[in-house]
Amino acid sequence: MERPPALTMEELGRRLGAEFPEAFAPENGLAITAVWYGGCRVRQPFRPSSLRPGGTISGVTLMMLADVSMYVAVLASIGWMPLAVTTNLTINFLRKPPPAALHAECRLLKLGKRLAVGEIAIGSDGVAGPLAHATSTYSIPRTEIGTIIPSP
Amino acid sequence: MERPPALTMEELGRRLGAEFPEAFAPENGLAITAVWYGGCRVRQPFRPSSLRPGGTISGVTLMMLADVSMYVAVLASIGWMPLAVTTNLTINFLRKPPPAALHAECRLLKLGKRLAVGEIAIGSDGVAGPLAHATSTYSIPRTEIGTIIPSP
Amino acid sequence: MERPPALTMEELGRRLGAEFPEAFAPENGLAITAVWYGGCRVRQPFRPSSLRPGGTISGVTLMMLADVSMYVAVLASIGWMPLAVTTNLTINFLRKPPPAALHAECRLLKLGKRLAVGEIAIGSDGVAGPLAHATSTYSIPRTEIGTIIPSP
Amino acid sequence: MERPPALTMEELGRRLGAEFPEAFAPENGLAITAVWYGGCRVRQPFRPSSLRPGGTISGVTLMMLADVSMYVAVLASIGWMPLAVTTNLTINFLRKPPPAALHAECRLLKLGKRLAVGEIAIGSDGVAGPLAHATSTYSIPRTEIGTIIPSP
Repeated sequence: MERPPALTMEELGRRLGAEFPEAFAPENGLAITAVWYGGCRVRQPFRPSSLRPGGTISGVTLMMLADVSMYVAVLASIGWMPLAVTTNLTINFLRKPPPAALHAECRLLKLGKRLAVGEIAIGSDGVAGPLAHATSTYSIPRTEIGTIIPSP
Repeated sequence: MERPPALTMEELGRRLGAEFPEAFAPENGLAITAVWYGGCRVRQPFRPSSLRPGGTISGVTLMMLADVSMYVAVLASIGWMPLAVTTNLTINFLRKPPPAALHAECRLLKLGKRLAVGEIAIGSDGVAGPLAHATSTYSIPRTEIGTIIPSP
Repeated sequence: MERPPALTMEELGRRLGAEFPEAFAPENGLAITAVWYGGCRVRQPFRPSSLRPGGTISGVTLMMLADVSMYVAVLASIGWMPLAVTTNLTINFLRKPPPAALHAECRLLKLGKRLAVGEIAIGSDGVAGPLAHATSTYSIPRTEIGTIIPSP
Repeated sequence: MERPPALTMEELGRRLGAEFPEAFAPENGLAITAVWYGGCRVRQPFRPSSLRPGGTISGVTLMMLADVSMYVAVLASIGWMPLAVTTNLTINFLRKPPPAALHAECRLLKLGKRLAVGEIAIGSDGVAGPLAHATSTYSIPRTEIGTIIPSP
């Protein structure tokens, strides 16, 4: 997939701040670190509020990161489409997340007219091997030709 | 499954407040409304902070509710076991969640020595049919006979 | 869902024999035992060829039964739609299947214009509790109004 | 993972012929084409009996290939362990399989003492991109140290 992304990192960051205030609140520090046609990388700095007893990071934090990564990868590939919605997410938790920054890489396996399917690997600084692996499906709303809203 | 639950709602609520401060912070209002051997019901009042543009509730809110419900159902059935961890969660998003309270019901499909598998249906006040359906697997740490820590 | 099914058991059986010769070959004995708008029940008699060492039934046999049940439930609800295809299937294997007949019940959780989502419980004669639980998504092809091919 | 596989392709082929007679019947032509510590490749030649109307290959054929690949990858990594069982399989169907040979590659994401988790990509000769993607979990029976049955 040699096409350029449909939205730049900066455009994505600005729009997602409005779309996902919970995830993209500035104090969370969630950052898109790379986007391309068909995928992206997202980084979540360590937040003490996501710690669980035993010093691991909550599963919800990993699920949010998987979901956000998939959304960014879809938008980076089809352009701004606020009605695209997750229809399915499957996550396998593989290793205990240490109290450290998380990074996710999403890669689209399919980008159809109606459905996009991607896989997401979540890792942590200083841990070999993935902490979690997810697959997710997005439903893409049908639009008339030409009605995909261009990014401003 | 006619056995009584291994922990009461009150015990579960107290312990989860310490275990999942994010989810069970008093301002969230998350409440266990029923527990039995093999299942539970949990209620999440509406929180404006979980709204997304368009007036729907974020997918992360639903995933957290599914995960918490499964945890409560497992603990209600095997007793306090802080090392039990989610290994898999699959969620299908079925309908747009309106800005209203959510309720989840978890039912264990299997409660083995090593794995517990459950299904969770999430609904909303005033909506017919489920908003989301999840299945989840928990890995149960091996303990010597008699070492399941009794609730205080 | 009080509507009658869109196809009768007899119509479904005849069409599926042509559509899924592997599954519905007469020697397999696979039989639709009930259909309604939104669901169905399917029965797979015991076949020695599906045995694995140790006397259990192969996982593939259960996956096929889940997939067929979902297809029958979708067609029973929307009518004959040969281009409907599975997009996702998640199955949890819960108990060892003994060498006996299997029965599956599928219940649609959502029947939208583009996607149908259902859950399938698979049991066995003489075993309490489900042997396997699956969820599955079907993509429903878009048709112009009136073009759903009526059953003959 | 630089360790050698715990079983060779030849050992695996011989044992699987006995273990999975349905899948490994010689007339099926299913063949292990590579194994290593942590993964494998498996090839399923085209069989007319797996065709569905429209000229595509049945979903069951793909699910069987995913399940077999995971089993081979697990055994190639831990040695002969006949009681290892699938506990979960999630498959996304991405593209229509043309009437041609299928090939699967399985890669273990985690190989723990109790659970192995892997992902499987299924492709077809002459098609760019995966036809299906699966993740699967195996439960590994607990054995006393030293009791893993060595391959003969």
